[in-house]
Amino acid sequence: MFVQAQVLYSFTAEPGNNELSVQEGETLTLLNQSVGGGWIEAQNSRGQTGLVPEDYIQGVNGSDAWEAHSTENCDSTQQQALAYQGSIDDDEWDDESDDGKSTGGYTWSQSEEGGGTMQRGTGHHTMKISLNKVFSKTPNPEVFLLTKHMVKENDRLPIYMGEVGPVWLYPQTQLDCVVADPKKGTKMYGLKSYIEYQITPNSTNRPVNHRYKHFDWLYERLMEKFGCAFPIPCLPDKQVTGRFEDEFIKMRMERLQGWMSRLCRHPVVANSEVFQLFLTYTDEKDWKIGKRKAEKDETVGVMVFTTMDPEIRELDPTEVEQKCETFSRFTRSMDDRVKDLLSVGHLHWKRCTGPLQKEYQRIGKAFQNLSSVFNTSGYQGEATLTEALTATGKTYEEIAEICAGQPKKDLHFLMETNSEYKGLLGCFPDIIGVHKAAIEKVKEADRLVAMNKIGPQDKHTMAKNLSTMSYALQAEMNHFHSNRIYDYNRVMQLYLQEQVQFYETVSSLYLYTSLLI
Amino acid sequence: MFVQAQVLYSFTAEPGNNELSVQEGETLTLLNQSVGGGWIEAQNSRGQTGLVPEDYIQGVNGSDAWEAHSTENCDSTQQQALAYQGSIDDDEWDDESDDGKSTGGYTWSQSEEGGGTMQRGTGHHTMKISLNKVFSKTPNPEVFLLTKHMVKENDRLPIYMGEVGPVWLYPQTQLDCVVADPKKGTKMYGLKSYIEYQITPNSTNRPVNHRYKHFDWLYERLMEKFGCAFPIPCLPDKQVTGRFEDEFIKMRMERLQGWMSRLCRHPVVANSEVFQLFLTYTDEKDWKIGKRKAEKDETVGVMVFTTMDPEIRELDPTEVEQKCETFSRFTRSMDDRVKDLLSVGHLHWKRCTGPLQKEYQRIGKAFQNLSSVFNTSGYQGEATLTEALTATGKTYEEIAEICAGQPKKDLHFLMETNSEYKGLLGCFPDIIGVHKAAIEKVKEADRLVAMNKIGPQDKHTMAKNLSTMSYALQAEMNHFHSNRIYDYNRVMQLYLQEQVQFYETVSSLYLYTSLLI
Repeated sequence: MFVQAQVLYSFTAEPGNNELSVQEGETLTLLNQSVGGGWIEAQNSRGQTGLVPEDYIQGVNGSDAWEAHSTENCDSTQQQALAYQGSIDDDEWDDESDDGKSTGGYTWSQSEEGGGTMQRGTGHHTMKISLNKVFSKTPNPEVFLLTKHMVKENDRLPIYMGEVGPVWLYPQTQLDCVVADPKKGTKMYGLKSYIEYQITPNSTNRPVNHRYKHFDWLYERLMEKFGCAFPIPCLPDKQVTGRFEDEFIKMRMERLQGWMSRLCRHPVVANSEVFQLFLTYTDEKDWKIGKRKAEKDETVGVMVFTTMDPEIRELDPTEVEQKCETFSRFTRSMDDRVKDLLSVGHLHWKRCTGPLQKEYQRIGKAFQNLSSVFNTSGYQGEATLTEALTATGKTYEEIAEICAGQPKKDLHFLMETNSEYKGLLGCFPDIIGVHKAAIEKVKEADRLVAMNKIGPQDKHTMAKNLSTMSYALQAEMNHFHSNRIYDYNRVMQLYLQEQVQFYETVSSLYLYTSLLI
Repeated sequence: MFVQAQVLYSFTAEPGNNELSVQEGETLTLLNQSVGGGWIEAQNSRGQTGLVPEDYIQGVNGSDAWEAHSTENCDSTQQQALAYQGSIDDDEWDDESDDGKSTGGYTWSQSEEGGGTMQRGTGHHTMKISLNKVFSKTPNPEVFLLTKHMVKENDRLPIYMGEVGPVWLYPQTQLDCVVADPKKGTKMYGLKSYIEYQITPNSTNRPVNHRYKHFDWLYERLMEKFGCAFPIPCLPDKQVTGRFEDEFIKMRMERLQGWMSRLCRHPVVANSEVFQLFLTYTDEKDWKIGKRKAEKDETVGVMVFTTMDPEIRELDPTEVEQKCETFSRFTRSMDDRVKDLLSVGHLHWKRCTGPLQKEYQRIGKAFQNLSSVFNTSGYQGEATLTEALTATGKTYEEIAEICAGQPKKDLHFLMETNSEYKGLLGCFPDIIGVHKAAIEKVKEADRLVAMNKIGPQDKHTMAKNLSTMSYALQAEMNHFHSNRIYDYNRVMQLYLQEQVQFYETVSSLYLYTSLLI
């Protein structure tokens, strides 16, 4: 029996690749779901057969695996555009045997599913969704609170008392990297293509290559390991504005650059083994061994706090709760305001590139048409007037273009920064949730001791461990604030300079025109 | 039996004036239609009674008299606003016995109707509509073509050959006047108020006073007398944008100024007896005698051509026809283009004062709100950033206001000039129509001679008279062109300078803000 499926997004076949063009809403019969590489062989109602990307169709078997990648906490403003219709294969699952396994020691590893090699792409998606679901339930900090841990020296994440309070250990030289030189590669005997990006860290100055799926793998490792302690920015979306391959690649590269730079600026992430592996692996073998090791890492989830080692041990619990509450309120308010700004910015973008551009063009045409009529008067001595009218018309047409192009020059960066922050802010409720749950557990400690469920020593351990979590949260708050000030300062500088430039350009266009008359 | 009427426009009663507030769509019972002064006594469904302006209601008797003043050929772009709801009484008909009669010797005098004194307001309206109707049928030039006229010296309107072709006789000093100092007067024992404007011509430097209805009377005299030969600009509308009395009076005064200045610039109008009477009457008696004389003037309609006296008599009929055709095409094209410009200008006006202003305000609020949240962070060292964000927000709010106020500074004058031209251009089809009809008549002359309907001498007279009409038309074309160039030059200069100013202001606001960060 063949399965029926519905097409979610239109897809245009590349000639000679045995692909099948399909239209959104069309119903297909699935002939072979085991083709692999993210492809499915299907037949349309006219009897034509070919390969269709599995992400573009929705099976009638109702499996979650057919649904699109959930992008909770991630920027949805930029997702309103149409699905990217190129043939770049982001999320196919390789035949590399070490690629499909996620063996993280934490809760969400249980949700891994998907059997044979050919189904791994599907399993991969499902896992991500489950991961988000688990997260929204808030990880239980109990297992950590009761751990009598000793920090191993090479894992140690020190937290110092800085001027602003607890801070992470910042390196002398800040890590950064350049994402550049996207290159098209092919696989499946040239049937499918993918993009490989070159990443050059300033630490080694030696480039490494990665595909989108490797970034995605890194994101998952970082979420597993650090997601309870600090926000891991979302990866740029699979779907982006603009359907053209070049524009898509450029935009993705720019966003991957932003993503990497932000991670590089976080001292704990930048210094982590998995992140260093990603940036500095020497060869395929090194990469594979490193990958396997990272996937087996057991110090993930709340257990990451076992590696954190604050300089001072004691903290006033009431003060901690207050600071936590203040920060929670701050992030929620900032989240609202950032969403406001994104929403009005998005509206303004649409107005500038839509109705306003058209209106300026219409005004421009109206002046030029009037000039044309005046030219037919047969009356002498109006050359100055008709030239000025034509020039005014052309100025309006220029302004239409400048106005439509302006958002890319300034609003774009304001929107990107706010989108990134929207993503980061969306992570905080869970992080703060873990912390609050820990506070509650510690408050219960006396009762638990009385009930003989834990010993007095356990109570002491819990208090000490909560103190570690509080230091970590405060270090992260301070990291967030200092980055926020840096990022917004930079983006506002650029934004205001570009606005000055824009209005100066337009005023000089008018000045030039006004001198004609 | 009482008549029922429906309310066309909402009207708010002025306290203490025995008026009745009514809502659009409401049904009234008319108690007394003979109150006069443009008022009717009516009762609403709640039993309240009072005076209602007769123009605001539509009787169920279906009389034309209830319908609003037809404003064909006049600017309707500016008429989309609500009816002016003040209590200024424009078009009431006085009890002065010489006011209600229109005794012009031309066709449309036949359509005058409306009986008793109290009904004159109504008759006045109906006459205007009929006047337009008669006009669109094109006056018959035959009566003039067959006239063996001798121009009386004091009526003589010479046409000279200038550099550009036939031209009117332009005076050494151009007449102009200043319309100023609108003063409220009252009548009907203080029950109703009206506005009197002071008009001071540069010829006498002695002010005269006129109410709107006197301008309206002048318009009708000029239409009667010169409407076949050149466009008489429409009077500014009764309905204008803005409901506030002061704004209404200011706008009307500005438009009456424009209307008078345009008439002053036309040498034939400026020099005419009726126009001079309007500008220079010495006392009420002088005014009344002059009015009566003007209304009895028989040299109106096509007969006005009897007073025109071209320097040269002969014209090539083919060339005349071509020139006439060229000008006809020009005015039609210009009419289309002017309407385009008005329509897109109107759209732009609405965008600037509506969505764009609101959007800038929203962006401004979004920046300021973000700044407020940042201020609650409790983190040190972000005063510069929050100040810059607040300043950016305030800049956007300022821009919202500048942007919304800008159309009044530049687009307004562009729109006013184009509206005036739309009115003028709308007059040309009739003027050209009369001329074309005359050409056809003269072409028929041979056949008429053969049929003994006219003598050979008549044929000669017709050719000579057509030549006079052609000279007049060409003089008017040249007058139109030279005024058009002057007007558009002036308005474009102002427009472009204001645009430069606008963009410079905004750019310096941004520059100032960008220096904060």
